[in-house]
Amino acid sequence: MTETRHGAVGTGDPAGTLDTPPLIGAQRDTEPGTPPGAALPAVPEPGAAEGQEAQALLRRSRESVDPELRSALGSLPPAMRRVALYHFGWRHADGTPAAGNAGKAIRPALVLASAAALGGPEARAAAVRAAAAVELVHNFTLLHDDVMDRDTTRRHRPTAWTVFGDADAILAGDALQALALRLIAADPHPASAAAAVRLADCVVELCEGQHADTAMELRAPHEVTLDETLAMAEAKTGALLGCACALGALYAGAPDEDVEALDAFGRQAGLAFQLIDDVIGIWGDPGHTGKPAGADLAARKKSLPVVAALASGTPEGAALAALYAVPYEEDREDLESTALAVERAGGRDWAQAQAADRMARAVQELARAVPAPEAAGGLLALAEFVTRRST
Amino acid sequence: MTETRHGAVGTGDPAGTLDTPPLIGAQRDTEPGTPPGAALPAVPEPGAAEGQEAQALLRRSRESVDPELRSALGSLPPAMRRVALYHFGWRHADGTPAAGNAGKAIRPALVLASAAALGGPEARAAAVRAAAAVELVHNFTLLHDDVMDRDTTRRHRPTAWTVFGDADAILAGDALQALALRLIAADPHPASAAAAVRLADCVVELCEGQHADTAMELRAPHEVTLDETLAMAEAKTGALLGCACALGALYAGAPDEDVEALDAFGRQAGLAFQLIDDVIGIWGDPGHTGKPAGADLAARKKSLPVVAALASGTPEGAALAALYAVPYEEDREDLESTALAVERAGGRDWAQAQAADRMARAVQELARAVPAPEAAGGLLALAEFVTRRST
Repeated sequence: MTETRHGAVGTGDPAGTLDTPPLIGAQRDTEPGTPPGAALPAVPEPGAAEGQEAQALLRRSRESVDPELRSALGSLPPAMRRVALYHFGWRHADGTPAAGNAGKAIRPALVLASAAALGGPEARAAAVRAAAAVELVHNFTLLHDDVMDRDTTRRHRPTAWTVFGDADAILAGDALQALALRLIAADPHPASAAAAVRLADCVVELCEGQHADTAMELRAPHEVTLDETLAMAEAKTGALLGCACALGALYAGAPDEDVEALDAFGRQAGLAFQLIDDVIGIWGDPGHTGKPAGADLAARKKSLPVVAALASGTPEGAALAALYAVPYEEDREDLESTALAVERAGGRDWAQAQAADRMARAVQELARAVPAPEAAGGLLALAEFVTRRST
Repeated sequence: MTETRHGAVGTGDPAGTLDTPPLIGAQRDTEPGTPPGAALPAVPEPGAAEGQEAQALLRRSRESVDPELRSALGSLPPAMRRVALYHFGWRHADGTPAAGNAGKAIRPALVLASAAALGGPEARAAAVRAAAAVELVHNFTLLHDDVMDRDTTRRHRPTAWTVFGDADAILAGDALQALALRLIAADPHPASAAAAVRLADCVVELCEGQHADTAMELRAPHEVTLDETLAMAEAKTGALLGCACALGALYAGAPDEDVEALDAFGRQAGLAFQLIDDVIGIWGDPGHTGKPAGADLAARKKSLPVVAALASGTPEGAALAALYAVPYEEDREDLESTALAVERAGGRDWAQAQAADRMARAVQELARAVPAPEAAGGLLALAEFVTRRST
């Protein structure tokens, strides 16, 4: 099963499904692993080799982390367990087993790949609990996010709050956060305390990022700056990807500067992903996804290409601002001319250049901590898979 | 400032104010430190000596813990900090300083008193961060609880969600949970990991308890058993009081059996508090509180005396069930006859006997771990203060 974009970009390619980024408003339900198709010539599909390596890493990660996750969820008392198992896709609402799919789980794969890159197979094995904890945090944010945003569909199923009510979805999210930090606190590994501190700090950053996104959508388009939109995307999407990589480094016993480099690698890769995701949110291929492109424009979302266009100081930017001042009413031409205004104001080029720049920064940070290409390969493959860029 | 009971029992006695129990539905906003007055002859005001000792302990606890709490909240990013400082009563909604009052904070006082009882002044000093963490968890549950229950007033002020919206109240609660576990994880004390695990487990139990309460209120009165109502009250109220005491014991380096005994002490005292609180929710003195008694009955709450009466198998229990089958319409006589039915069916006597029994168990558990009366005195004074019982 795959996840669906906010009524915009779905996919017919389960193999390409990737778990969603945390607490993302417009972009929350995207499928970063899905090849973007012909609509995005500047962002080609990943090279076959990288794509296959990433798929294999994700599969192996699932095999390592799922038992830990199932055991953690199994330790919950009945009501919390029921909601959590439903949310993870492992049970139906009535409690019967589901063939389910909890997404590709990119974050735990990043934890394990970072640990392996800096400490080899032993560090990877030691980091499995931390990987599960990161995935629990991610899913806690999804549960709460869906309540706040009143989203009704996730991973092709009704969201938890639509099935169990707001209270139980909030409570299950609370319980998953506790479970995540418990998993790390109970881990006798010497990095455990530092990892718990880092993960808790990340949760706070995710909350501030989600706040910024919600607040930003309520403001007038001209009041929103590009810098704050980038900062919001870093807090909402980059922070947990960075934390995942940093936790892997901590479990490998890496020195502080390598932990920070891995964090920066994950953050920059996360921002690159978000930029590309926002591009797809405007120009995504309806033929491929089966849903119309432009849903972010219809929702008047202040996604990164849009804010770049609005801030461009061009006549097309001003035209876009005028379009955004009026709520969208179903009209293909409106969407097309809005997309064209974003493009002509330079929003698309800016986003793609920024994404390339962020990926370059990510690669640089990674090379600082992991100079040997054979050791860095897994992390690079995952980052490229997430951002769907071939090198 | 004082807190208000769910439109029922307020107080004119700020000195008697106590912080609210976690995630309590009908009982959430009560003031367990407030002398119940003449309406409850079986539960007299605490002896002057115990009351004074408890007040002094609470004051000293506040002096130790507040700087840690303020520093923790100060570390939050701006939006989360704003909501948290408002919720704690330290800032107005516009961010200007408030004279505020975050309640008496019984839970951190229990952490410190337990540490002192088992490890003396050094253990008490070492446990300050853990005490702050417990208070942060308590307040995270209050923030979420108010969202779920749509409660509009807490501590005589509009609840956070009414001021900042649901999303920010949920996010601030999430951030406070993370902050709590971070505070303990960052603590170099050797008990820190065990304390974090225990606090996380407690959060899960609080969530399950809140779920049980919400679910119970939706069921027909005859479907609710006394055992499950007691179990719910233990999870919602007892668990965090028990955890607070257990954390103090952990920070004193106490052996496992003493940690468990302290946990049991806190749980039983918490249950005693809840039972007395439920009695006040029905027969509380309007003259003293300035608000009508019987609000729990008007809301058809399945509080402990009510469930005991319904389960009594008496004709009065059946009469009560008939009354509860119909929604309340403003009518003093209805409330009086409902209260009388609970009393005649034995609900009041049962609750008071249970409370006495629970306090006896609490005292027993405490004596096991802390046999010396002079060492146990502080914890006993706090427990008696909470349950407003003189020994």
